[in-house]
Amino acid sequence: MNKKVYFAGSIRGGRTDAALYRRIIEYIQRTDAVLTEHVGKPELNLLERGRDRDGEIYRQDTAWLRESDLLIGECTCPSLGVGYELAYAERYGIPCHLFYDRRKVQLSAMLTGDPYFRIYPYEDPEEIFPILRRILDGQEPQV
Amino acid sequence: MNKKVYFAGSIRGGRTDAALYRRIIEYIQRTDAVLTEHVGKPELNLLERGRDRDGEIYRQDTAWLRESDLLIGECTCPSLGVGYELAYAERYGIPCHLFYDRRKVQLSAMLTGDPYFRIYPYEDPEEIFPILRRILDGQEPQV
Repeated sequence: MNKKVYFAGSIRGGRTDAALYRRIIEYIQRTDAVLTEHVGKPELNLLERGRDRDGEIYRQDTAWLRESDLLIGECTCPSLGVGYELAYAERYGIPCHLFYDRRKVQLSAMLTGDPYFRIYPYEDPEEIFPILRRILDGQEPQV
Repeated sequence: MNKKVYFAGSIRGGRTDAALYRRIIEYIQRTDAVLTEHVGKPELNLLERGRDRDGEIYRQDTAWLRESDLLIGECTCPSLGVGYELAYAERYGIPCHLFYDRRKVQLSAMLTGDPYFRIYPYEDPEEIFPILRRILDGQEPQV
């Protein structure tokens, strides 16, 4: 309980799944803290802000990542930022649990081939929540 | 001359830019070696192969990355794999030079905000090649 969760979802890579990100974030927030709540917000600014101001985002996000207890990623929408965050999380030993809709995409071999990541393909987004419950409760998800 | 170049481009994230990847790879190959020549091939298999066989891809690609002299990335098409490779390359101190079409996309703040990456936005793919020439010749690109 009261884990610090880094939620990873696409921002500039595409907002197709933003409503699902929001549902996942709100579900986690019932019991735990989400450091990256903004990823679920529909009104998020998607424009580049120049290297200095993007640098502030980068420093904040990587600081959150290093202090998080675990990362939950929704990986259906391809995203350079999420890919970067996953390798960064691995470097710092942050446990990573990744969901994606297997009806829609083939996940990168850099993720499916890396034994560090726990990966949960789903066919219906409703499958996410019972798995998430077990992850947040510190139990081994049964999939 | 005869540098070992890791070319990074989207595979399962989308093949919209595959013809451009191929042009870049063939340009590099005039003077240097591209470890990831397959990224430019139109007939590439895009399907997941299960965690074991994807593991072979992962181990091969990360081994190539560690032994490369530099990474050239075409980042217009969002890709989890490319994002992962960029953070991995940074971890191992491999110099990274990234191109993207600024007419088409906003690049992730995890890349634009990270001072480690050299980034070259372009509006016409022809702009890539003179910059690439200078990078491969070991000169500081003027942009």
